[in-house]
Amino acid sequence: MINKDKGDHKYLLISGNIEQQIMSRVLKIGDKLPSVRMLSDQHEISVSTALQAYYHLEGKGLIESRPQSGYYVRFDPSRSPRKVEKSMPHQEIKTKEVETIIGEVYDDFVSPDVVRFSLSVPAPEILPLARLNKAMMQALRDLPANGTQYEQVQGNGLLRRQVARWSLEWGGHLQPDDIVTTAGCMNAIAYCLMAITKPGDTIAVESPVYFGTLRFARSIGLNVLELPTDPDTGVDPDDVKRALRNHNIKACFFVTNFSNPLGYCMPDEQKEAMVRLLSQHGVPLIEDDLYGDVYFGRSRPRSCKSFDEEGNVLWCSSISKTLAPGYRVGWVAPGKYLKQVKHLKLYHSITSPTAQQEAIASFLATGRYEHHLRKLRQTLHANSLRFIQAIGEYFPPGIKMSDPKGGFILWVELDKHIDTYQLYREAMQHKISIAPGAMFSLHDRYQNCLRLSYGMQWTPQVDRALRKLGELIRNYE
Amino acid sequence: MINKDKGDHKYLLISGNIEQQIMSRVLKIGDKLPSVRMLSDQHEISVSTALQAYYHLEGKGLIESRPQSGYYVRFDPSRSPRKVEKSMPHQEIKTKEVETIIGEVYDDFVSPDVVRFSLSVPAPEILPLARLNKAMMQALRDLPANGTQYEQVQGNGLLRRQVARWSLEWGGHLQPDDIVTTAGCMNAIAYCLMAITKPGDTIAVESPVYFGTLRFARSIGLNVLELPTDPDTGVDPDDVKRALRNHNIKACFFVTNFSNPLGYCMPDEQKEAMVRLLSQHGVPLIEDDLYGDVYFGRSRPRSCKSFDEEGNVLWCSSISKTLAPGYRVGWVAPGKYLKQVKHLKLYHSITSPTAQQEAIASFLATGRYEHHLRKLRQTLHANSLRFIQAIGEYFPPGIKMSDPKGGFILWVELDKHIDTYQLYREAMQHKISIAPGAMFSLHDRYQNCLRLSYGMQWTPQVDRALRKLGELIRNYE
Repeated sequence: MINKDKGDHKYLLISGNIEQQIMSRVLKIGDKLPSVRMLSDQHEISVSTALQAYYHLEGKGLIESRPQSGYYVRFDPSRSPRKVEKSMPHQEIKTKEVETIIGEVYDDFVSPDVVRFSLSVPAPEILPLARLNKAMMQALRDLPANGTQYEQVQGNGLLRRQVARWSLEWGGHLQPDDIVTTAGCMNAIAYCLMAITKPGDTIAVESPVYFGTLRFARSIGLNVLELPTDPDTGVDPDDVKRALRNHNIKACFFVTNFSNPLGYCMPDEQKEAMVRLLSQHGVPLIEDDLYGDVYFGRSRPRSCKSFDEEGNVLWCSSISKTLAPGYRVGWVAPGKYLKQVKHLKLYHSITSPTAQQEAIASFLATGRYEHHLRKLRQTLHANSLRFIQAIGEYFPPGIKMSDPKGGFILWVELDKHIDTYQLYREAMQHKISIAPGAMFSLHDRYQNCLRLSYGMQWTPQVDRALRKLGELIRNYE
Repeated sequence: MINKDKGDHKYLLISGNIEQQIMSRVLKIGDKLPSVRMLSDQHEISVSTALQAYYHLEGKGLIESRPQSGYYVRFDPSRSPRKVEKSMPHQEIKTKEVETIIGEVYDDFVSPDVVRFSLSVPAPEILPLARLNKAMMQALRDLPANGTQYEQVQGNGLLRRQVARWSLEWGGHLQPDDIVTTAGCMNAIAYCLMAITKPGDTIAVESPVYFGTLRFARSIGLNVLELPTDPDTGVDPDDVKRALRNHNIKACFFVTNFSNPLGYCMPDEQKEAMVRLLSQHGVPLIEDDLYGDVYFGRSRPRSCKSFDEEGNVLWCSSISKTLAPGYRVGWVAPGKYLKQVKHLKLYHSITSPTAQQEAIASFLATGRYEHHLRKLRQTLHANSLRFIQAIGEYFPPGIKMSDPKGGFILWVELDKHIDTYQLYREAMQHKISIAPGAMFSLHDRYQNCLRLSYGMQWTPQVDRALRKLGELIRNYE
């Protein structure tokens, strides 16, 4: 393992235990926690480690210190909304074109002054801009001819080496030659779909599903079968088996870790079963694993690719969710479809800009990535809890919500009669952008749902925006 | 006009006249030219302007100075090989798959130590690397969040403004909102073809034709009709008219200025007639104009787009042939297909990396591009003449060759029984790479042709490589 997360630090162990007690309501809101000295005695740790554990919990918004008094629980999981249930998509015809909605919400994502809960990329204030910039300048100096010449079609060699090395983290064993770099993860998914399908084919996806995949699939004439999806564990192999019996499915697409938008993380056994099943049927799996590095637990979840022995999994990822969406650096390990994917890249754009890839490679190589991830995970975990509490407080009591263990996306289900596309338009009047649920299906579903990103710095402005959103939703009642 | 080429400088006028006399053999090899003083008297110019005219011609390899004696003609156009004739492609089946050949020649273009006559991009030694690097660093500093965030789908605003401004040079009148930036010109062509065709459609192209377009067209299931093409003027509207009568053509693709590989430049009247004809038939024209800035004459040729009043021309270009192929910066003005092209870009890769676009925009804005182009044109013009002379000297007498007035590509036709794919393999033994003619058609044609790029610094090594290539060709006789 490289740059292994220092998850075995004592303070993390102890704060993890306390967090669990808060979440299971053993410790309730308002409860006083042991004094720092007491904690240090109980666990045979130094006072400073005990303090560190409390600071960590405070940073996440789970506890608070009161002057002259000590630490108190401030988080109440019962105030979190109920969890969403397993989706059961029907295949009815959609009344409003999904592309129209996506177009309106997404085609311009650079207008200023909008609180952008709609965009599933990290805001600049939580990114290591100065270090990235330094890495870019170094890359420009280091590259042959300063990056002005074509690089290999397969992509920057340093980056492919680092991605291969890093694959150990999720149980992979990739070689640099297994990997093709792409212009971000969407570009990787696009090449994979083009490599393994032809117009008129059917693919099976989770539901709700990342709209980028939906609209790309439509643009190349694919039919899309949306599968029932559990908000904790994702798609059940039994449901896939049924679908394979009834439909001529040419490929599956799943975001296996902290999926967009449901936030589920498929358990290891389920991943393994899924890989085995699809392999038996000769149906390739496009695995979108671009949130996998942003876990809130103790270690990175595995990927389906790590169980793939036959090259049947096309594993896609990028640094768009962790470092720099604008760099457009992604990659794919396409298994036995390597040649086709490489050719598609060559046909569509010859090569990729090399400087950004070189800069990211050096980030991965030197430990700067792991260093940044540790901080990012903590920020996002804390954000997720703050968002959940705020939504519990500001939104109407009847709503349901996802409970992601990583990533930075929440899925919220409102009362059935509320149309979140309408809500989106109202919210935009107040410079608040949300992603309406209808974007995440080709069928008439999720009109009462919305996706919220918490990939930003928590500020009073964000708090106010959530409160305003709650107000707008309550107006429907 | 911006940064207008100082083509009205007196020394250029005079050297241009002398060049014409050499080319028309009024002045023959070995002829003594007037002394500098005499030239200055004849034309009522200063001695230094007269000297400048001779330096200019010397730089091009057309004349030479002999110590204590003066200037002499050293170029003989009669030693240039005969010109290739108009292509008459038949539509017979090809025996060897074009993709196999392309794959072998092109899939790896980074092996070191090869004299790369095969690659139609400028070598780093004739590019302004230091200035580009500086522009990149500045761009990273100037961009919001240092270029880490998504930019507008349509592309960097500064770059689109500069491309629009620059369009005046070729008779265009584009607005920034008419333009979508892309990952190089091939990427622009790819989006255009996807926007206006569907699998099974037929497109008409010049012949021989840029292989990138051929293989992309095949990859999306298009049929390709190859049209007769004149090496000086390109495709004749009458031939297009005939093709439109006999085939259901959905789009045309032409490289109108200094085409790749024939090198023709379509005359203005022909461009205008072509645009009118295709507009009447409602058949869109994809115009690839990426060599247009590298003209050897007095001004930039116009584009078909400049005659387009109905948005029927999708004009594609890039800086890959003039500044930095590795930056992957290109663009397209897709006329009435703007929305479709923009959506395709969004679907395939969301946005482009922004730093390279910003750097190129500043190059265009500040006159550094025009400054570089002046030098580049002179280098390439001189190279073209040196290559033509060397080929005339080293290659067998029977060969034919193109006579480009811009760009950096020569098309050479050898004796009918010579297979240039075989020649390619032999040349590679000597670390010389050429592009075999068979790559430029889907049919059994051009097996005895090859494409040579002269986009590099002329060196003894280049001279030796051409001599060796000549030897290998003579071995076939």
